[in-house]
Amino acid sequence: MARSRKDLLGLKGVPAEEIQEILKNAKMLKQLISQPSKKASHLSGKTVITLFYENSTRTRMSFELAGKYLSANVANISASASSVQKGETLIDTGKTLDVMGTDVIVIRHPMSGAPHLLAKNVKASVINAGDGINEHPTQALLDMFTMKEKLGDLKGLEVAILGDIYHSRVARSNIFGLTTMGAHVTVCGPGTLLPGGIEKLGASATLDARAAVRNADVVMALRIQRERQKGGLFPSVREYHQFYGVDEELLSLARPHALVMHPGPVNRGVELTSSVDDGEQSVITEQVTNGVAVRMALLYLLTRRA
Amino acid sequence: MARSRKDLLGLKGVPAEEIQEILKNAKMLKQLISQPSKKASHLSGKTVITLFYENSTRTRMSFELAGKYLSANVANISASASSVQKGETLIDTGKTLDVMGTDVIVIRHPMSGAPHLLAKNVKASVINAGDGINEHPTQALLDMFTMKEKLGDLKGLEVAILGDIYHSRVARSNIFGLTTMGAHVTVCGPGTLLPGGIEKLGASATLDARAAVRNADVVMALRIQRERQKGGLFPSVREYHQFYGVDEELLSLARPHALVMHPGPVNRGVELTSSVDDGEQSVITEQVTNGVAVRMALLYLLTRRA
Amino acid sequence: MARSRKDLLGLKGVPAEEIQEILKNAKMLKQLISQPSKKASHLSGKTVITLFYENSTRTRMSFELAGKYLSANVANISASASSVQKGETLIDTGKTLDVMGTDVIVIRHPMSGAPHLLAKNVKASVINAGDGINEHPTQALLDMFTMKEKLGDLKGLEVAILGDIYHSRVARSNIFGLTTMGAHVTVCGPGTLLPGGIEKLGASATLDARAAVRNADVVMALRIQRERQKGGLFPSVREYHQFYGVDEELLSLARPHALVMHPGPVNRGVELTSSVDDGEQSVITEQVTNGVAVRMALLYLLTRRA
Repeated sequence: MARSRKDLLGLKGVPAEEIQEILKNAKMLKQLISQPSKKASHLSGKTVITLFYENSTRTRMSFELAGKYLSANVANISASASSVQKGETLIDTGKTLDVMGTDVIVIRHPMSGAPHLLAKNVKASVINAGDGINEHPTQALLDMFTMKEKLGDLKGLEVAILGDIYHSRVARSNIFGLTTMGAHVTVCGPGTLLPGGIEKLGASATLDARAAVRNADVVMALRIQRERQKGGLFPSVREYHQFYGVDEELLSLARPHALVMHPGPVNRGVELTSSVDDGEQSVITEQVTNGVAVRMALLYLLTRRA
Repeated sequence: MARSRKDLLGLKGVPAEEIQEILKNAKMLKQLISQPSKKASHLSGKTVITLFYENSTRTRMSFELAGKYLSANVANISASASSVQKGETLIDTGKTLDVMGTDVIVIRHPMSGAPHLLAKNVKASVINAGDGINEHPTQALLDMFTMKEKLGDLKGLEVAILGDIYHSRVARSNIFGLTTMGAHVTVCGPGTLLPGGIEKLGASATLDARAAVRNADVVMALRIQRERQKGGLFPSVREYHQFYGVDEELLSLARPHALVMHPGPVNRGVELTSSVDDGEQSVITEQVTNGVAVRMALLYLLTRRA
Repeated sequence: MARSRKDLLGLKGVPAEEIQEILKNAKMLKQLISQPSKKASHLSGKTVITLFYENSTRTRMSFELAGKYLSANVANISASASSVQKGETLIDTGKTLDVMGTDVIVIRHPMSGAPHLLAKNVKASVINAGDGINEHPTQALLDMFTMKEKLGDLKGLEVAILGDIYHSRVARSNIFGLTTMGAHVTVCGPGTLLPGGIEKLGASATLDARAAVRNADVVMALRIQRERQKGGLFPSVREYHQFYGVDEELLSLARPHALVMHPGPVNRGVELTSSVDDGEQSVITEQVTNGVAVRMALLYLLTRRA
């Protein structure tokens, strides 16, 4: 990763060499997680703050542990406990953390672009842990790490992504990252949930799950966000499962070695049947471990500069 | 403690030798708490997660500090902040923590049996920090530790437990543990709050506080949970105090050296009069310190395996 | 600071030599914050608990990081998650933390005097992080640190404090501390928000912002607490800004080198115009850094005793 890089706000525009370097470092650091003593000194004396304006135990914990395994000082701020309630702006909060000696701010925010606003106003490195419907770059990095670890080269891979593409920051980050790495992405979902202009991003789109999955190397199902359904854009859970849920029959259309992936937590019986979730092709559990590895790599690479 | 033991889910069925070993280690580790520098390396590089689906600052803090004094990485999840809100199941949460490199999950849950379900599904050690009305084994261990420290051998001790026995996981764990160690427990409370079958567990039951306390070596009052009162099972606070509150007169029936214990926090003037709470026989404050010691011992013993 | 000092509950009555010593130590420890590795061992093996009955991400984070930079074990309790809900009293909570091996309790509480009550009942050092409308001594210490760093000696300084003086623990602590150090404080605000008896504390009071600011070395604006406005004591935000907001014209009455200070977060356009907040005379951002330094110094000095 370029030593000059301060932040990771998204995968859009991040060159292949930087992605390669993150994945390479994640591979080395992943070994730490399975050791009896998970303790390295890469971030000793560095401060990592998780600043979450949306709850996500999973993602927060992944960053928190990544920081702690590397001996960082980690502190957490959740929106509900924060002085958001006092009307403090994001920029104020960021500047305050900055001058307290923070090296990395990990931000999750419901508003697309919030991490970019923050990054412009602080000296600390900013990592986007999910912003609105924009990007979730560390999720895409852990997805790519998992694909690379299991299938070798990313170049030429066929990746099918099924679900609510329109609202998915996971899908967007994967499209940017995978396309850069020479893989081909096909997104698939109900018409109301497929954004236009997918082709301009170098990906393909289809309403037909069978077409999307056929000959895929990776079948990635996205989590349905039940709260979106209120908007009327979403089919019923039953309909969704019928047309876009991954069962063994649908999966059989993919290549024999195809991976089943999901950012978790899975709504079993909706996005995936239990048999697929628990099946041999599922790497969903390993994605979680790889998330810690990728986040350790990012924390290390971003605090190494200067 | 058996090196093969992965979890501590309850004291039911735990053999005397294992309890002895926990208490022995707690005794050694307790010294750390009073030292100028509370820092040992027993859990360096280990990860301890507190996963609390019920609030308990006291118990959470006791585990958190126990972990930190032994140099573990400690992270906290409270239900309100957790992805419980996303509908993630306990098993999913546990598996996620597991593959992030967690060594011990300390769980408190309103549902009896939840820790057992978790333990079956994760590689990490699981410690039950209270599950519904089932068990609260670390509380009973700290109680036994305190009795042993003050009175010597547990064998032959007469222990009276007063209060809402029916809903008390503290009472249940103490009955299992103390009975295993050769002590005799008499539980006592209003008829609506005394479960049947106490005798089958090797303990005695009575409605009469004076009978329970007479010649006791230990008088343990349980905390009344005011929220239970809504159910109509509970007498008024005033009535409760009249019949089951421990005052000096009631205490005088016990042996002269008898200890007064309570899991805390005490409702003064209800379970105990202030004079008894603050009296010479009260070891309630030391129970708290011993809680940290016992939890350090458990964290050490459970992570030592392999 | 006197080695016999256990707590810092307020600046009232704290002698000049103790304040000097805190500021001197803060100056040394401040250097740590800008170093690549923020890690010193002054509090290794010590336990610092933040016990906040009011939310304040800023202040909690400042103490948390101060503790972590000095290698303390830090754990947080927020009122909403605490067993306050179980009706545990402050004293019970304090005693519990005490016997778990806590060295310092940092308390914020809506009730004036709560830290004093706590301090009397625990062996741990207690630091008041703001109690009702009484004191906020660490804020005043960081303010004094900032003045001293920028202007040299505190003696003889003219300090104007503008805002809701009546409800301001920041103003009170500054009056006590600055007066002790030989500075002169003039408080200024709407008549309904100026308490009587200011003169008895050695300070002056005026309704006229121009008079207060004229020839001042420091212009400190307090944060308006919108929730107070409900009481009818407060003018509208617009009126407030008109009469007591600091703009360039008002600031021009102060001495050329005058500092603009604010405890943060600023309501821009209310207490200060944006141009003053961002202007050359503003040291608001540095106040935040200095807050960490002052808190490190206090944690160090208070745990050094014995």
